[in-house]
Amino acid sequence: MPELRKDVFTELWVVVPTDRARRPSDFLREPVTSVPSIGPCPFCPGNEAMTPPEIMAYRSGSSWSLRVVPSKFAVLRVEGGLDREGDGLYDRMRGVGAHEVVVETPSHVLSLTDLTEHSIEKVFTAFRERFRDLKNDRRLRYVHAFKNFGVAAGARVEHTHSQLIALPLVPRRVRKEIDVAQRHYEAKERCLYCDLIRQETQSRSRLVLESDRFVVVEPYASRYPFETWILPKQHRSHFEDVEPDHLANLAWVLKSTLRRIEKALERPAYNLILHTAPIQEFANPFYHWHIELLPKVTRVSGFDLGTGYYVNPTPPEEAAQFLREVTLA
Amino acid sequence: MPELRKDVFTELWVVVPTDRARRPSDFLREPVTSVPSIGPCPFCPGNEAMTPPEIMAYRSGSSWSLRVVPSKFAVLRVEGGLDREGDGLYDRMRGVGAHEVVVETPSHVLSLTDLTEHSIEKVFTAFRERFRDLKNDRRLRYVHAFKNFGVAAGARVEHTHSQLIALPLVPRRVRKEIDVAQRHYEAKERCLYCDLIRQETQSRSRLVLESDRFVVVEPYASRYPFETWILPKQHRSHFEDVEPDHLANLAWVLKSTLRRIEKALERPAYNLILHTAPIQEFANPFYHWHIELLPKVTRVSGFDLGTGYYVNPTPPEEAAQFLREVTLA
Repeated sequence: MPELRKDVFTELWVVVPTDRARRPSDFLREPVTSVPSIGPCPFCPGNEAMTPPEIMAYRSGSSWSLRVVPSKFAVLRVEGGLDREGDGLYDRMRGVGAHEVVVETPSHVLSLTDLTEHSIEKVFTAFRERFRDLKNDRRLRYVHAFKNFGVAAGARVEHTHSQLIALPLVPRRVRKEIDVAQRHYEAKERCLYCDLIRQETQSRSRLVLESDRFVVVEPYASRYPFETWILPKQHRSHFEDVEPDHLANLAWVLKSTLRRIEKALERPAYNLILHTAPIQEFANPFYHWHIELLPKVTRVSGFDLGTGYYVNPTPPEEAAQFLREVTLA
Repeated sequence: MPELRKDVFTELWVVVPTDRARRPSDFLREPVTSVPSIGPCPFCPGNEAMTPPEIMAYRSGSSWSLRVVPSKFAVLRVEGGLDREGDGLYDRMRGVGAHEVVVETPSHVLSLTDLTEHSIEKVFTAFRERFRDLKNDRRLRYVHAFKNFGVAAGARVEHTHSQLIALPLVPRRVRKEIDVAQRHYEAKERCLYCDLIRQETQSRSRLVLESDRFVVVEPYASRYPFETWILPKQHRSHFEDVEPDHLANLAWVLKSTLRRIEKALERPAYNLILHTAPIQEFANPFYHWHIELLPKVTRVSGFDLGTGYYVNPTPPEEAAQFLREVTLA
């Protein structure tokens, strides 16, 4: 009998057809290396002039180990005011914001898992630094940090990179998560995500791994097969408030998790999305930053699109067991 | 300069980068005929035993022209109670519902546009009949009628068909549309969708076509390139309350619209989704049933997924002009 599970964080429902679970080998996979080549790689050393002028970089001597540059395909522009206006029924404003690319390494490698833990740590250090800088622009309300890996996940350049988009609005999904978490806190004086960590580390059925500082779980109402969340044990609403010395542990946890997913699903395309509190809001006791990993192994159909429900053919308990049992060489 | 446009119907924002609009020829296209063949077609005459027992059919003599059958890949089951229960933090219920397939024609054709208008009218007549029947099951709150065309849109069988999923819950997107429309009505004593029809038929910049009974528009805050809505001029909250003699006109309008989209985008994969009021609720003056056509010509990326915002590279004004100018042989 299929089950309807409520995602308590967003109040969405997910259909989990428990009687016809799909194994990792059942999923469609698209080759992740097939980002169409458009001449020389703009992110490789020697081609720095192919990107807009650098925003920041980590260097030793004359060589860089990480660069942050404005996106050439920016969806928002940093200049000017918002100029909100109506148009009959409708509302619009200018697309003010920032769109930055984090080139994670000078090496032309495809996956974050090809990086050392130290290099992955630097990616998070760069995120933190950019968040703290973008916060100073009072027009910007939210920084969306994410990574598209593979064509099916929207990647357009092969060389491993992440993106930051600073928005003049708080995204719907984040606002909903915050509202729900605030109501939970008002009712119970507890953070909903700290509650999740307690319940999942006790029951262990959806736990993928646990370190000193982080837990990795398949959420109860996973929208996608092998949807995976990484949560810090230390409560912080804002990612940019994470202790810098926790980032090495985060790098280890993320690399281990991604290697498990890559091994289980044969390097699927995926999106990595950081969920964090809006940059202009104060630290609060109810929201809890975290990372969501969304492997792209099924197609979105008219059911998901039309309803805002999801059908997930793999129960998270099975996905978690599978990922726990992956042996990493 | 890119623009942020608010979808007044759902309160989502869409980024429309007006300065780098993409033409129909710029989009990725996946072949729509590549649904993997799994032996004989279960929807062709002679193979009726390959589907579960028929729910209804239109026949003349011994041959059928349309059949409705339970889905073999049902995501919900019709037996039993909901058995709502908690599990620590979480909530679940049994996946009670109905999942039906409308086989639109006995001919093994792929697209709705291969059908005569009379056959398309019958599809809507069948929808209407099924809605009126499913309404009698008080456990069911919403009927989600949709069509997946092409693999990229989630189709699993090639032979043209639609689907009905009756749910024990009202989907989030529909509930949001209804709440927003109700607030508009309370403030202004007008239906938000009737307002849209008035504004779009006056300005005409986003109008694709207009018949006696229906208007076809590219919505102001289109989430996807060539997103297209078909709205009845006659206000009705519930699809099942449409006058039966309007369905022939709807068939003509839908076929003409789809033919334009197929010609402009070279038969893209798409989802067709009917938006209508919940079956257990009374007719109301604020919600307005309509059809949304969502061509699948771009990939969903970590930006869309993480924020609930969309980036649409084709302004709806350009898409509308393009579709208006398509010449149908």
